[in-house]
Amino acid sequence: MITINYANMLSTRVGPHGLDEARIAPGSAAAEGIKSLTQSLAKTKGTNWERWYNLWQEPMRSEHVAAIKPIAKDAQKYENLVVLGIGGSALGNIALQSALNPATHNLQSSKDRSGPRVFVVDNVDPVYLDSILKVCDPKKTLFNVVSKSGETAETAAQFMIIRERLQQALGKKWASHVVAITDPEKGTMRTICDQEGITTLPVPDGVGGRFSSLSPVGLFSAACAGIDIEAMLDGAKAMDERCSNEDLHKNPAAMLALLLVEMGTRKGKPNHVMMPYCNSLYLMADWYRQLWAESLGKKFDLNNEIVFSGFTPIKALGATDQHSQVQLYREGPNDKVFMFLEVEEFDTDITIPTSADGKGIEAIEYLEGQSLATLLSAEKRATEYALLDSVRPNMTIQFPKVDAHHIGEFIALWQIATSYAGLMLNIDPYDQPAVETGKKATFGLMGREGYSEWLTKVNDALGETSHTI
Amino acid sequence: MITINYANMLSTRVGPHGLDEARIAPGSAAAEGIKSLTQSLAKTKGTNWERWYNLWQEPMRSEHVAAIKPIAKDAQKYENLVVLGIGGSALGNIALQSALNPATHNLQSSKDRSGPRVFVVDNVDPVYLDSILKVCDPKKTLFNVVSKSGETAETAAQFMIIRERLQQALGKKWASHVVAITDPEKGTMRTICDQEGITTLPVPDGVGGRFSSLSPVGLFSAACAGIDIEAMLDGAKAMDERCSNEDLHKNPAAMLALLLVEMGTRKGKPNHVMMPYCNSLYLMADWYRQLWAESLGKKFDLNNEIVFSGFTPIKALGATDQHSQVQLYREGPNDKVFMFLEVEEFDTDITIPTSADGKGIEAIEYLEGQSLATLLSAEKRATEYALLDSVRPNMTIQFPKVDAHHIGEFIALWQIATSYAGLMLNIDPYDQPAVETGKKATFGLMGREGYSEWLTKVNDALGETSHTI
Repeated sequence: MITINYANMLSTRVGPHGLDEARIAPGSAAAEGIKSLTQSLAKTKGTNWERWYNLWQEPMRSEHVAAIKPIAKDAQKYENLVVLGIGGSALGNIALQSALNPATHNLQSSKDRSGPRVFVVDNVDPVYLDSILKVCDPKKTLFNVVSKSGETAETAAQFMIIRERLQQALGKKWASHVVAITDPEKGTMRTICDQEGITTLPVPDGVGGRFSSLSPVGLFSAACAGIDIEAMLDGAKAMDERCSNEDLHKNPAAMLALLLVEMGTRKGKPNHVMMPYCNSLYLMADWYRQLWAESLGKKFDLNNEIVFSGFTPIKALGATDQHSQVQLYREGPNDKVFMFLEVEEFDTDITIPTSADGKGIEAIEYLEGQSLATLLSAEKRATEYALLDSVRPNMTIQFPKVDAHHIGEFIALWQIATSYAGLMLNIDPYDQPAVETGKKATFGLMGREGYSEWLTKVNDALGETSHTI
Repeated sequence: MITINYANMLSTRVGPHGLDEARIAPGSAAAEGIKSLTQSLAKTKGTNWERWYNLWQEPMRSEHVAAIKPIAKDAQKYENLVVLGIGGSALGNIALQSALNPATHNLQSSKDRSGPRVFVVDNVDPVYLDSILKVCDPKKTLFNVVSKSGETAETAAQFMIIRERLQQALGKKWASHVVAITDPEKGTMRTICDQEGITTLPVPDGVGGRFSSLSPVGLFSAACAGIDIEAMLDGAKAMDERCSNEDLHKNPAAMLALLLVEMGTRKGKPNHVMMPYCNSLYLMADWYRQLWAESLGKKFDLNNEIVFSGFTPIKALGATDQHSQVQLYREGPNDKVFMFLEVEEFDTDITIPTSADGKGIEAIEYLEGQSLATLLSAEKRATEYALLDSVRPNMTIQFPKVDAHHIGEFIALWQIATSYAGLMLNIDPYDQPAVETGKKATFGLMGREGYSEWLTKVNDALGETSHTI
């Protein structure tokens, strides 16, 4: 199972930049606080906006798996699966595909790869969408539209474009090349799907976008690409059980949240860097970025006091970013916490061979006969040491392997840590009020009826300027 | 040409979070300061570690282009170009390829794409390297090894692995499938290339890794992939000329550096977010991340005072990250400056069609007949407005088009801005002392002769711990 080593977060290792062990010791106020927060969560989880806790519990789990499997099986006949979605409707899909299938999945022959090629189009850049549509013949492509309401401008625009392309290629059968993941009962996308007979899977009630990757939103494309979604749900369930423990020292989500909130609010370290030493986990950090940023970045707390809470999630990649960011991480402002993701056993390893003629070059001879996994592990340990040497707190989240089970654990770990962090910060981790302004301003600029006041507001605020160089 | 609109950085728009216009007005101390910094740069540029200014000047420019072109032409016979490098030896290559060729370059047929498929392997993750080697038959692959010294552990390890694969596939001819970019005179890679008869291109003296993307380091792979490297150098030269102006208000690099340094040091905004509204510019932000972080993140200033200077570069993507990061950007700590990258004219646009039966759905009907570029531009303007509404300073770097000329301008803009920022912060932007500890610790852990003391140091510092959950 996934473990967290937090020794380098303590003042014994990083002096005043770290936490005193007494502060989190058994019997401490923080440890007692976790008991009551855990009791409080036990009452609310599975209700309201915490219904994402049900995703790995019966009956929801089996209902989703049963609904997904036949559609994913049918999807095997396509060459391409193109997911249309943005934010929480895309980041889980990207993270799962990237973590659990090779980086070259789309370049492999259909025999070698597990399922269709997968493209997740999470923007409305025309050059980008065009480049993907050019390599995806609509006749050989299944489009997976993900939008709870159907009104998200980006996804709606993408959908309207592919609808026309499919109609041109397939005529009346076009709708058979679409699977929508949307509200089971209401909304614009629901209406379209009912009218056109589009196959749908549900976005369950009470599961916000950023908490939806273990719902059909993330599971469908994963299943299409041969990922073991049941193992993933097993992993999430196992982590949830560990994180139901009232003992801080046995509850990884509570400990993770406590360490990060303490660092962010009391130690001047509001920048939270996730740095996998593993390429396949790099885009998982984008999923984390949304979860941590959007959940905790809030102007008001629950007492309506202005707090401007939140932490800035940053992604980095080891060993690559040792040659890009570590200079700053060691010598710049001490305003960050580092979370390494480390993998104990890679699926493949490569041995660095000796020179064919036996004449090694002295300066690189030490590498001969060692493996890339050994080198990567040494690099991580060296960076851990270098950060400690600069009194920069860091911790390591350890994966025994990168597989579906442990990815499920990881997702649940962070979602549950977010619940705890919300309680600790006394904010609502489930809303995103600040996103509305931009949506309304976009409607105004695009001429949607009823939003003309927003057009005026934007133009007044941005006005003409001579401040251009 | 590229322009910068900085109206939203001023106190007239974001109150005390912005700069008073008087502070940067003609005749102000800051404007006078730029005069003397520009005079000082005029004397040093082209010398010592500022020899990167020579890359777009004769005779170096023509020497490089002449050396690169025939080798890049010969590379057209390969199916694959695999670049082996890390940090500054990779980030420019990735950024140029991603900015100037389609996202689907490697998926296109050899007829449709410009040049071989391009892979830049900038890590030693064995699963990642294995996945790439599996789709690149060594007989059809040119390997481009980029390392000034040849002693960078990651690149050396990669090189040793591909050397064996090539030897197995090609026997004695293996070296013909390698082009090395390395020190023209000395070092481990130089020795190997001389022994084996490997074709080389130079990493010029006085051009550090992060300032090397317009040297053969970045230009060779770009030329192989059909990018107009001369247009890029023209763009850089044009920007350098603009940035030689002593007038702050006519010198974009000086203005960019001044605004960011002021925000970082006097306005509590050390986090510098680059947010392109354009997918192809997204990985350009990784190139910027290295340049800005590694150049300015310094413990000591030039008077040997402890300063812990530097700013944390963060990358985001518009419109995508509106659904992930903007909630935090508006309601979290006001500790960031935002730099939008905006494109006036995309190479392709897509019109959002009307519904085939003419019955639009009210909630999305406003999109009909408009284009994706229009939508993306509206989203950017809406986000600019939303950030202003939350008094978050931001600016826009405007590209007339994404083409080689403007990418060259952009690279020179940031490199020159980095020169200015170094002078303003009174630090050395060209060294990276903090990276050495990690390198030595890695040598120690990997058993390189002469580094055993580092093994002891690491093991003593990290020791055994029971702080695992």
